[in-house]
Amino acid sequence: MDYEEELAGALRALRQEGRYREFADIRRKRGNFPHASYFSADGQRSIKVWCSNDYIGMGQHPKVLKAMHEAIETAGAGAGGTRNISGTTHYHVELERELADLHGKAASLLFTSGYVANEAALSTLARILPGCVIFSDEQNHASMIEGIRHGGGPKRIWAHNDVEDLDRQLSEYSNDTPKVVAFESVYSMDGDIAPIAEICAVAKKHNALTYLDEVHAVGIYGPRGGGIADRDGLMGEVDIIEGTLAKGFGLMGGYIAASTNMIDAIRSYAPGFIFTTSLAPAIVAGAVASIRHLKESQVERTQLQERARELKDRMAAANLPVLENPSHIVPVMVGDPVRCKKLTDALLERFGVYVQPINYPTVRRGTERIRLTPAPYHTDEDMDYLMDALNTLWQEMDLARAA
Amino acid sequence: MDYEEELAGALRALRQEGRYREFADIRRKRGNFPHASYFSADGQRSIKVWCSNDYIGMGQHPKVLKAMHEAIETAGAGAGGTRNISGTTHYHVELERELADLHGKAASLLFTSGYVANEAALSTLARILPGCVIFSDEQNHASMIEGIRHGGGPKRIWAHNDVEDLDRQLSEYSNDTPKVVAFESVYSMDGDIAPIAEICAVAKKHNALTYLDEVHAVGIYGPRGGGIADRDGLMGEVDIIEGTLAKGFGLMGGYIAASTNMIDAIRSYAPGFIFTTSLAPAIVAGAVASIRHLKESQVERTQLQERARELKDRMAAANLPVLENPSHIVPVMVGDPVRCKKLTDALLERFGVYVQPINYPTVRRGTERIRLTPAPYHTDEDMDYLMDALNTLWQEMDLARAA
Repeated sequence: MDYEEELAGALRALRQEGRYREFADIRRKRGNFPHASYFSADGQRSIKVWCSNDYIGMGQHPKVLKAMHEAIETAGAGAGGTRNISGTTHYHVELERELADLHGKAASLLFTSGYVANEAALSTLARILPGCVIFSDEQNHASMIEGIRHGGGPKRIWAHNDVEDLDRQLSEYSNDTPKVVAFESVYSMDGDIAPIAEICAVAKKHNALTYLDEVHAVGIYGPRGGGIADRDGLMGEVDIIEGTLAKGFGLMGGYIAASTNMIDAIRSYAPGFIFTTSLAPAIVAGAVASIRHLKESQVERTQLQERARELKDRMAAANLPVLENPSHIVPVMVGDPVRCKKLTDALLERFGVYVQPINYPTVRRGTERIRLTPAPYHTDEDMDYLMDALNTLWQEMDLARAA
Repeated sequence: MDYEEELAGALRALRQEGRYREFADIRRKRGNFPHASYFSADGQRSIKVWCSNDYIGMGQHPKVLKAMHEAIETAGAGAGGTRNISGTTHYHVELERELADLHGKAASLLFTSGYVANEAALSTLARILPGCVIFSDEQNHASMIEGIRHGGGPKRIWAHNDVEDLDRQLSEYSNDTPKVVAFESVYSMDGDIAPIAEICAVAKKHNALTYLDEVHAVGIYGPRGGGIADRDGLMGEVDIIEGTLAKGFGLMGGYIAASTNMIDAIRSYAPGFIFTTSLAPAIVAGAVASIRHLKESQVERTQLQERARELKDRMAAANLPVLENPSHIVPVMVGDPVRCKKLTDALLERFGVYVQPINYPTVRRGTERIRLTPAPYHTDEDMDYLMDALNTLWQEMDLARAA
């Protein structure tokens, strides 16, 4: 057994498939997004970021930064323990109240990330509801898939956003069997949106709980930023809403909101919640400020939608193969991992435009793409420059145009 | 199926066992540790924290706080993406270099927590080394147990710190079978320390990799804070060292350090690493400052050991049932979950001394305890006050004294 050779082989397989990942070393310029510094072997230079999930730039909002500074001065750097052992700060208590209120639920629970929220909540549901069957949309995020797998209970995959298929599969079980329907509102890579009302109605008909991942929607949809279910007046129909403090809110961390018993049971039984140092006070305080701001302010949400519409229209006018969808996400299809990487390398090196190639396993093979995330801080001039760069490279590389 | 009733039942079970957890709502006072504010229904009052894992108070160190403030002003609040999609900041690159250097390894990899580091690394090892058998010390932390379970491969449990048992179990497999020996240096609840040299020698004899969790040792043992393996000159004998940025370093986040191929393979294959927003720049910058300081400074480590020795000696002199051990952790045995909770409630409410009860599943049933973590910032007067409170309550509650 030669371990180093075995590991080298696993890495060679990735390179041969053209999906070995190289991370771009960057540092965003606070107050000047989308500008960032790019660090390479040749030194440091300025670029523009077009692929951040800090969707509306809350990561540079003065209220957020002020709250972080104040928390550091007041309480220090880290929380100093798990939630149970000295790591529940007053900031955590405040944030959990804000989040419960945001989603119209009785309680909420913080996790160190959205990934951990999904992993811990879904795996624990399978354990505290013995015999529970989880019905998972086929395009659910890796964190939900891992959570369901770790729960070890029975799982059914239903066709993406297909309410009839879900209905058919649910009807195979009696009303006495515990069931959870797990799905997302905005799917991150295609930007499509689930029919939440119909899914909840079918779930209710079969006495199933609903678990909705709103990570790509919280902060940026709904009159108070509660997500798509908030926008559509459906939060009361969903049993468990999962969200993130990264992305729309601009920080890091994840959470669920639900009934008091549900939150208390997951709080009490989930190893991924119990056995880990809690989020740092500065992160939590920044999140409180971000959420409070976005419960009131509409300007960031309005600008985000306008910028996304503008970019999609420009793409369509230029016959670039943009994937039309009802969200703020702008996917442009390439369809090959090696060419996708070559395209984004050229964008970065020649034009200072930073977009990551999205390859398998994040998307299915053959659907490799670039995924643009226009934000309120991207100007018309930024878009002119981006479109010129894309048109030039599409021509040079002879990439497929829209039909 | 009545979901709410089912969940209420799961919670009743915990209450009946006396192990329902209530989190104390506190806020530490930066610059004035161990002092903290305690928030209860009756309002806010001042307490002293005796159970933080911010072992040497780096969570209030001026260098750490300065680095955090600067990172917020330079780069903003959150990283804005996963490591692959715009979330690798220059701070992350710098920190991974610091950590590799700290442990004398070629490379390192950051995770959002120590829990996730263990879960992701161990589950991925089982996948990238097909057929791999993991030999796990019976007292390993929940995060290691979950990681091994999620990997889905064969697992062997060896008796705690028992090198002969490990040797016997390893010898059942051929040299061609991939094997990983997973253990900790300082065990958090008893404070005992593993015989690292002997374990590594046995592992090497059987061609097994070694995976060492140093979360309760990094920053606070070794001439540069590399942990027990650093102190004992054994870092070169260990294949993978796992650590945390919480505890000794005062922040949050986790990591592994190992060979280039090992780090690259886990980086490329671990869902818990790939599909999550990376640590916020302020956290990462604070960690760089903390680690750099502790590579040079001995004063915090020296004071920690002196304070721990002093408290243990006082406990022994008072015939309190302290668990003697060679580390900085001071466990005092109670042996019953209900009385343990009653003791800590009285300490907090009557004396303003905050210590959490440690009950199952964190420790085995019947070994319930309080776990004190004296730090450089606890004065002799703090200890006088603590000892008086403990002696009073031990007497009143008729708790068992040392034999």
